Amino acid sequence: MSSSLPLSAKARRTGEQPISFLMVAAIANPKLINLAAGLVDPQTLPVAAVRQIAETLLSDPARGRAALQYDTTLGFTKLRKVALAHLEELEQTSADQMSLTDRDILITTGSQQALYLVGDVLIDPGDIVIAANPCYFVYSGTLASLGATVLTVPMGPDGIDVPAIERLLEKLKQSGRLEFVKMIYTTSYFQNPTGLSMSAEGRRKLVEVVRRYSKERRIMILEDAAYRELRYDGPALQSMKPLDDDNEFTILTQTFSKPFAPGLRTGYTAMPADLLEAVLHQKGNHDFGSASLTQHIAAEALTSGLYAKQVRTLCENYRKKRDAMLAAMDKHLPASLGATWTRPHGGLYVWVTLPKTIDAGRESALFRQCIERGVIYVPGEYSYQPDEFGIVAKNHLRLSFGQVDFNQIEPGIARFGEALRSIA
Amino acid sequence: MSSSLPLSAKARRTGEQPISFLMVAAIANPKLINLAAGLVDPQTLPVAAVRQIAETLLSDPARGRAALQYDTTLGFTKLRKVALAHLEELEQTSADQMSLTDRDILITTGSQQALYLVGDVLIDPGDIVIAANPCYFVYSGTLASLGATVLTVPMGPDGIDVPAIERLLEKLKQSGRLEFVKMIYTTSYFQNPTGLSMSAEGRRKLVEVVRRYSKERRIMILEDAAYRELRYDGPALQSMKPLDDDNEFTILTQTFSKPFAPGLRTGYTAMPADLLEAVLHQKGNHDFGSASLTQHIAAEALTSGLYAKQVRTLCENYRKKRDAMLAAMDKHLPASLGATWTRPHGGLYVWVTLPKTIDAGRESALFRQCIERGVIYVPGEYSYQPDEFGIVAKNHLRLSFGQVDFNQIEPGIARFGEALRSIA
Repeated sequence: MSSSLPLSAKARRTGEQPISFLMVAAIANPKLINLAAGLVDPQTLPVAAVRQIAETLLSDPARGRAALQYDTTLGFTKLRKVALAHLEELEQTSADQMSLTDRDILITTGSQQALYLVGDVLIDPGDIVIAANPCYFVYSGTLASLGATVLTVPMGPDGIDVPAIERLLEKLKQSGRLEFVKMIYTTSYFQNPTGLSMSAEGRRKLVEVVRRYSKERRIMILEDAAYRELRYDGPALQSMKPLDDDNEFTILTQTFSKPFAPGLRTGYTAMPADLLEAVLHQKGNHDFGSASLTQHIAAEALTSGLYAKQVRTLCENYRKKRDAMLAAMDKHLPASLGATWTRPHGGLYVWVTLPKTIDAGRESALFRQCIERGVIYVPGEYSYQPDEFGIVAKNHLRLSFGQVDFNQIEPGIARFGEALRSIA
Repeated sequence: MSSSLPLSAKARRTGEQPISFLMVAAIANPKLINLAAGLVDPQTLPVAAVRQIAETLLSDPARGRAALQYDTTLGFTKLRKVALAHLEELEQTSADQMSLTDRDILITTGSQQALYLVGDVLIDPGDIVIAANPCYFVYSGTLASLGATVLTVPMGPDGIDVPAIERLLEKLKQSGRLEFVKMIYTTSYFQNPTGLSMSAEGRRKLVEVVRRYSKERRIMILEDAAYRELRYDGPALQSMKPLDDDNEFTILTQTFSKPFAPGLRTGYTAMPADLLEAVLHQKGNHDFGSASLTQHIAAEALTSGLYAKQVRTLCENYRKKRDAMLAAMDKHLPASLGATWTRPHGGLYVWVTLPKTIDAGRESALFRQCIERGVIYVPGEYSYQPDEFGIVAKNHLRLSFGQVDFNQIEPGIARFGEALRSIA
């Protein structure tokens, strides 16, 4: 019999990823149509492109050796340069105008690691982070583990509710708590879970508000742009980086996972120099640098044009899948059921709102009926923080057209419709 | 002018890696003979092997897709299985006898990430870690960043001084501080910086001592075996894992970086199940899994035999370089200079002890003379914690035969000898 294992306070605050039960369900029943998984479509992974890139790199002894040696904690220089050039193109703004050089770009193990590190260097237990409700649940968990108090504002059709952020900051200022506000977290493009994006006006306004409330201590905007390049229609919006000309208030995380290949686990982040210095010291302790080989592959993907080609392929594929899902929903979820949903211009998710009387939670009749009929979704409750009365909305759910096979989308939605009818 | 950036307490405890000035010096003068860098030899990196492995993986669409998709936070199942089988072979002990299954193996971004995560889930500021003096400086920095109090015991020819650990634990018990002791950290094979290993007897004794002092709260042994397979002569010692039959007290970190290719940044760790659960939750927040592609490459390297072949190549190469360094030292550092040094059976380092009156520190005349003559080493002061009087030994230094070209070893040692004579 073993004696007790005394864990740190942080470890005691850190739980299992909340939706692992969905993975267990999917493995237990391979016939289940999985509209829950946020994974990318395995059929479109760029195996041929990466094979070609690996051969290019590894048939050149000098490049091969560099790819197999340690690199710096900041990341492979060439990747930082081409990632910055790619960012200039996305923003239609020069690095100069954003006060960015390749020294302001950090390479991480997926953009998740950047999100973690930023939290780690800014947050002491009790500090405040402002986020949307609903919000990307993995990062909510991370913030809880770091001891942050997450205060929420609603999500609207134009993304996180910026006027609500302004009111909240003013309230915190009045009550003397402004100094505890460390950052505002927003998934600004095709948000997980709602599929909604921040408007150009909302972005401008948020940078202005943060600047105004940062007179004594800087508040950071952490802009998670993971889904940015999976855009199927609608305008190509600038991030908030070009609005922050002196590179002071905004952190922009991007990744190769969603628009290219998650298995590379390579993300890149542009952030203020003083913050980057602290993050870099921390990453030195975490791993002193992400895998070099995958950084070399990512750099070659960008420069060879194979990345751009893959993004086009993905967008065509996901656009069709999104359209199929929305068409199936129009067909199988008649207005009489009272469900409404978002019509995202990109990303992987459709967000469904049911009548307030219907519970879509993990323990609900609806979820059980879905499992019985062979379809799963992510209950919306996991994406919510309790509101000021401690209540978590239960009448939402997330559907993903990411991993599921095209031909399974309509049958999946049909099963969901049947389940919904069965409990009506 | 930007307002202040309020960093977390942890970020304020975290500094730059202490020896980055050496990298700056090396880049500033490419003619410098670098006996400081702990990097592996670029000439022996397995470019051809990895090219072959990448082609095998990526020419098979199903394997290719798996390598480019997300994997679990725990790591690629096949890699965990073959890593465990490899461990069985190294230990000459069955997994069963060590109470290990592949579910007890965690894949990380280099073994550094495992070291970090273990610290992160065990240590609250003020907790105690016992380590050798001198000790691997990157991890000392990590422990300081986590807020640990590092108490030290001497390094002897048989590795970390286990009787001194026992005396220290008893003293802590008597003073009521035993409950704060979270772990004992030891690089048990060819230690960085001394090149020395723990004896079989020391290992047995340490597990016995820890068991005895873990009656109320478990104390962990964190065994860092990064250099284990770079063994050039001397016995192949078991780790402490087989001595911990119920998998309760020992954490064994191993890596593909030193014996294969650092650029894969892939390490694997065997640890007690309850600790692993906490570590896994934490890693879920850090990055939800290391790069899949490099995990697939590591697994294929092990199963194809290319790993074993690479280890043999490396051992032959480094044995020659070690012999060249020791021969050059015998020739260029006559007894009259008063220097003594270790004669390591593996790893990448020779540890030099100078007469107590000679300062080998970063600001010393010796270091300056070395720079002028075109050779650098790692001042030993970086590997030391202050002793109970706050004093750091300055008369040691670390030489590495890892990255330096074979033909540069003797000239480098000759320059070092001249520098030493110049200040005598």
